[in-house]
Amino acid sequence: MASTYGRLFRVTTWGESHGPALGAVVDGCPAGLEISEELIQHDLDRRRVGQSKVTSPRSEGDRVTILSGVFEGRTTGAPISLITYNKDADSSKYDAIRDLFRPGHADYTYWMKYGHRDHRGGGRSSARETWGRVAAGAIARQLLRQVGVDVYAFVRQLAGIDMETFDRSSIDQNLVRCPDPEAAEKMVKAITDAKESFDSVGGIVEVRAENVPVGLGEPTADKLDALIGQAMLSIPAIKGVEIGDGFNAVTMRGHQHNDEFYMENGRVRTVSNHAGGMLGGISNGEHIIARLAVKPTSSVAQDQQTADIHGNERTVLVEGRHDPSICPRVVPVAEAMLAMVLADLYLMNRSARLEHREPGQELIR
Amino acid sequence: MASTYGRLFRVTTWGESHGPALGAVVDGCPAGLEISEELIQHDLDRRRVGQSKVTSPRSEGDRVTILSGVFEGRTTGAPISLITYNKDADSSKYDAIRDLFRPGHADYTYWMKYGHRDHRGGGRSSARETWGRVAAGAIARQLLRQVGVDVYAFVRQLAGIDMETFDRSSIDQNLVRCPDPEAAEKMVKAITDAKESFDSVGGIVEVRAENVPVGLGEPTADKLDALIGQAMLSIPAIKGVEIGDGFNAVTMRGHQHNDEFYMENGRVRTVSNHAGGMLGGISNGEHIIARLAVKPTSSVAQDQQTADIHGNERTVLVEGRHDPSICPRVVPVAEAMLAMVLADLYLMNRSARLEHREPGQELIR
Amino acid sequence: MASTYGRLFRVTTWGESHGPALGAVVDGCPAGLEISEELIQHDLDRRRVGQSKVTSPRSEGDRVTILSGVFEGRTTGAPISLITYNKDADSSKYDAIRDLFRPGHADYTYWMKYGHRDHRGGGRSSARETWGRVAAGAIARQLLRQVGVDVYAFVRQLAGIDMETFDRSSIDQNLVRCPDPEAAEKMVKAITDAKESFDSVGGIVEVRAENVPVGLGEPTADKLDALIGQAMLSIPAIKGVEIGDGFNAVTMRGHQHNDEFYMENGRVRTVSNHAGGMLGGISNGEHIIARLAVKPTSSVAQDQQTADIHGNERTVLVEGRHDPSICPRVVPVAEAMLAMVLADLYLMNRSARLEHREPGQELIR
Amino acid sequence: MASTYGRLFRVTTWGESHGPALGAVVDGCPAGLEISEELIQHDLDRRRVGQSKVTSPRSEGDRVTILSGVFEGRTTGAPISLITYNKDADSSKYDAIRDLFRPGHADYTYWMKYGHRDHRGGGRSSARETWGRVAAGAIARQLLRQVGVDVYAFVRQLAGIDMETFDRSSIDQNLVRCPDPEAAEKMVKAITDAKESFDSVGGIVEVRAENVPVGLGEPTADKLDALIGQAMLSIPAIKGVEIGDGFNAVTMRGHQHNDEFYMENGRVRTVSNHAGGMLGGISNGEHIIARLAVKPTSSVAQDQQTADIHGNERTVLVEGRHDPSICPRVVPVAEAMLAMVLADLYLMNRSARLEHREPGQELIR
Repeated sequence: MASTYGRLFRVTTWGESHGPALGAVVDGCPAGLEISEELIQHDLDRRRVGQSKVTSPRSEGDRVTILSGVFEGRTTGAPISLITYNKDADSSKYDAIRDLFRPGHADYTYWMKYGHRDHRGGGRSSARETWGRVAAGAIARQLLRQVGVDVYAFVRQLAGIDMETFDRSSIDQNLVRCPDPEAAEKMVKAITDAKESFDSVGGIVEVRAENVPVGLGEPTADKLDALIGQAMLSIPAIKGVEIGDGFNAVTMRGHQHNDEFYMENGRVRTVSNHAGGMLGGISNGEHIIARLAVKPTSSVAQDQQTADIHGNERTVLVEGRHDPSICPRVVPVAEAMLAMVLADLYLMNRSARLEHREPGQELIR
Repeated sequence: MASTYGRLFRVTTWGESHGPALGAVVDGCPAGLEISEELIQHDLDRRRVGQSKVTSPRSEGDRVTILSGVFEGRTTGAPISLITYNKDADSSKYDAIRDLFRPGHADYTYWMKYGHRDHRGGGRSSARETWGRVAAGAIARQLLRQVGVDVYAFVRQLAGIDMETFDRSSIDQNLVRCPDPEAAEKMVKAITDAKESFDSVGGIVEVRAENVPVGLGEPTADKLDALIGQAMLSIPAIKGVEIGDGFNAVTMRGHQHNDEFYMENGRVRTVSNHAGGMLGGISNGEHIIARLAVKPTSSVAQDQQTADIHGNERTVLVEGRHDPSICPRVVPVAEAMLAMVLADLYLMNRSARLEHREPGQELIR
Repeated sequence: MASTYGRLFRVTTWGESHGPALGAVVDGCPAGLEISEELIQHDLDRRRVGQSKVTSPRSEGDRVTILSGVFEGRTTGAPISLITYNKDADSSKYDAIRDLFRPGHADYTYWMKYGHRDHRGGGRSSARETWGRVAAGAIARQLLRQVGVDVYAFVRQLAGIDMETFDRSSIDQNLVRCPDPEAAEKMVKAITDAKESFDSVGGIVEVRAENVPVGLGEPTADKLDALIGQAMLSIPAIKGVEIGDGFNAVTMRGHQHNDEFYMENGRVRTVSNHAGGMLGGISNGEHIIARLAVKPTSSVAQDQQTADIHGNERTVLVEGRHDPSICPRVVPVAEAMLAMVLADLYLMNRSARLEHREPGQELIR
Repeated sequence: MASTYGRLFRVTTWGESHGPALGAVVDGCPAGLEISEELIQHDLDRRRVGQSKVTSPRSEGDRVTILSGVFEGRTTGAPISLITYNKDADSSKYDAIRDLFRPGHADYTYWMKYGHRDHRGGGRSSARETWGRVAAGAIARQLLRQVGVDVYAFVRQLAGIDMETFDRSSIDQNLVRCPDPEAAEKMVKAITDAKESFDSVGGIVEVRAENVPVGLGEPTADKLDALIGQAMLSIPAIKGVEIGDGFNAVTMRGHQHNDEFYMENGRVRTVSNHAGGMLGGISNGEHIIARLAVKPTSSVAQDQQTADIHGNERTVLVEGRHDPSICPRVVPVAEAMLAMVLADLYLMNRSARLEHREPGQELIR
């Protein structure tokens, strides 16, 4: 539904990068959930830029204010309105591209669709829109926490450099959010190199959810896989998504790819997890694993051939302080989107059967 | 919304593989579109199985009947109900798996979610459900035809064998729907080999739309990329989807991946098409290109370790006539899903601006 | 959403009065509910016509077949497809009105909206469309039965004749479904009189739900009142709906209209029920009461002034066998619609709070 | 969808009466519409209270700020975020009812549904929530203005006093918004009387749209009547809605109620307008007319019997400055809701047929 994600846990984001403010409205969050600005800010701080040489030096106003839906520290069931005010309002630097279409950006398509566009900083197509997603995602994660679900993401590959070891505690300890400290160092260097050659690099972000109840996802249109696909491909700069073994599954044989079942403490488990935690579009209790293809940032400080709104061929040089790789900033957004999908399906699943029991609590007793 | 695809062009499928019938209801199709059972049957025939050694020898009743919404050969704006009756109703062969969970299938997750399942042939999670999608997709394609959009798909890779040449006219002339006749031959052999070793193989299906108007797709949650992601990952056996260069984009640099613009006959075009026909979630007029990772079929005639609904560890041997590769059958389903997404967004785009003109008809005059 | 009612318990109807068949697809019904064709047929039989002189002598094929979603007598969570075949397919009698707009009918507006219409028997705007609503409503009622909710309706006023006594058991024992046998007799006579003067009469139908749990309804757009309003005004021939005292409340004073609270067996009750069972859009545990204004049937066998599709002024005489009053047939439809609204909100309410308990089971223990 | 109105023109409101702010997000508004804060403020000023003795003396901060979606005076197609800040934040006067359920209010049902409530001023169920509706409605009205549609409302009856003459220009010239100045005077006196006896009165509000194009409304679930019903019954204090002759139609005969057609300047018109501007759920080009039953305000400064959250029977005296009649304040809300319904259906109608022309522009030329 255009700017709204979700069926029961519904998130509507609004705001442009150079308007007065940005925000999100979370509707359908159950009452009784403990929420605070600190809790949301914690996730928002992870998407901040400006701390280092590998990300953009812009200073963004990321501070969240809760305007509604929370009373005495708990959600009331009413829509939760989250807002932040834009501080860095100088948009004169965008005047040069007022009538130009930047390659790789949405300038041309917005112009053609709407016949009118806010050219300042990409307007609605700016990565700044993801502020609302991360803020709303923090609420979804808090909801999931009540049922023990743990969502996290990291950079798996950047500029062709693969992670080779996995240490979850390292993720937030380096500038690229890679769980392999050695690979992280190489990645940082690759970003610096790209920047020096006025270019940008892409990579792969992996997002996971652990301890997911069995039963999340609906059979056909709203398969868990499908909703993850929609959520992830709605993130700017994402050009692909795969579940479990994904594109690697295509060269496997069926007997290899099938995850065999066994019993563990009265619970059905799988020996392997090629399927990435879902079968027939419904979570099976194993880790949910998805990977996102992140394209190299479109803003490169090189001359590029383009056209303008009058139909003239032109040359454009995109100035400004841009991230040579968006990968580290995709991490919190991917976490937020997966959390929103799971929270939504968790609520949806409450109506799946007549006498409802929480999924995963019943098979063997 | 569970079993419904789309916002304005809405398709609801229903029916189980071993129930009396299957169908789809298409709601929101504009009035005045020429539709006939022949037109729909043409697409349905492409998903049929049974003609050859590489696909399942089952005989399915695929014959479509239009029950409503079409009068004197044209749509009336009322819901279009499409139905087919199941002929092959012997489900006794599934009795052996009544209380077993087949690895790679949805048996376990359905059981946990619903506490009650139709074990015959996978019930609702069967590939048979895609009948309704292909039937509805034929109507979407007819709608797109009015604006000149051409949707097609093909097998690009199977069992690790890549296509090396592209001849569109070859696609329907071989059993695996590959546009490279030589690769097709190798693929057929790979399938035969898999079958003989009681195994299955996966592959990559590519789906394209040509001559797409500029402007299809909404900015955030309903990006064209996002809705393609949802649509494709809702197809059984699909484990990944990529747009344009997709996962190959991750090792490119920004100046390589950006598609530069030029003018052609008063129209803005791109020199390359790394983006796969969309920018900022909105079609840019270039070919739409998506690729799907198809896992090897889960039904393999080998002993596999599993559990039953009582919590016992068991061994299961999935009998029956199953496709060693689902790839050729994914082709018409992928076409149908892309057509449904584009038809829906085409209708949605009619409300994008105050004085509406068809997208792509205005920039330079 | 056009032809779909409900958010979680979603009902899509399809079919025209003179097409080959009509049906409904119920999506989102929880698994595990006992459903049979007999159960649904029971409700459908109540909407049948042809038994008497006060309703139309047409013989309609009302027999329901369940095509999907039910296995071994219980719902599986999959979409439930319901179908009936039209038997009386002679539509030649409608040839005379092929290019005419019947006053009070939807001929003109459909023609203007769609530019193409199925003129036979009103097509989609026919009361025949309500078959699918009653069939789907029977499933909703079965769901409500599990939580003890009892939904029923009756004719309260017809041709200006009011009921004066209330005996629920009388409702189905007279031709007009009035709970007052004496008033019923007068109503029957009024209908006969109307018929003899080639005219028709209107009336008021009341629909109630008893033993409704507290908590059904959402705060703003999806208030219980609002969804009842949408549901009832979507029934053909309904021109008004009121809740509780409705239009009689407008001349009351606040202290009279407010329902004061008291305690009864640890449960909060109201002394009166002017509000009709809801406060702030949410059920309060008292009887839900709504009344519908039913206009006199539009089909009257008198000459009426009209226009045709070519812009000529014409005279039309609507022939055929029509009900002089639709009120008795509105009764089962109103029951079905209220049941669908309540079932939907019952499922929706499951996600209202973090630790869910059934509404109404907790206040005082 | 809980807090969201509309399908294509979607309005989500948020905020509580005693929280820091209230707002609305309008998503799906076409690009290119001229919008300003002044335009919206104009409608908001009409819902203000405090000017007189007949409405509440509270001073509310109604000032709107547009935070997004409008650039250089025109909509961009992006979500439009509207906000106002609450100034009167003293909620201590509500402490006395913290654990009490006020009769006629939503206190009890919210408590039961959510187990947690914001007791200050009714929280989400406060009439203050309608701020967002009026603000969003101003945008819908601006959209409708482009196609010539004129929406307005007025008080038709109050405390049993009926209007007897109609002078549209008088509506905004008296305190009760009645188009009959003499009746208005009596109504004002009735309100004053009610106030002096610590009581409140109800009334009937009529809302109309003139110059509506033919074709707005969808055939079954989303009939124009049905969506008006939902919209109006979602307004606090509304207990009934009728279309055209409404409940008066029930005693008419068919030949009286049917609106006969004639031709006027090549356009099909109706001689009368008993149907209130719609046939089969679709606008027919005549004036749309609906009437709302407004209950007497629930807040009366008299002792009332009630219960508290602990299950004790108690007495409550609702203090504070309350409107003895909400009717005058319902007027701008009813206008806003009708405008939202029509704007939504106007956009929806753009996808009704293959080659779209604006409705009403084609029948005869």
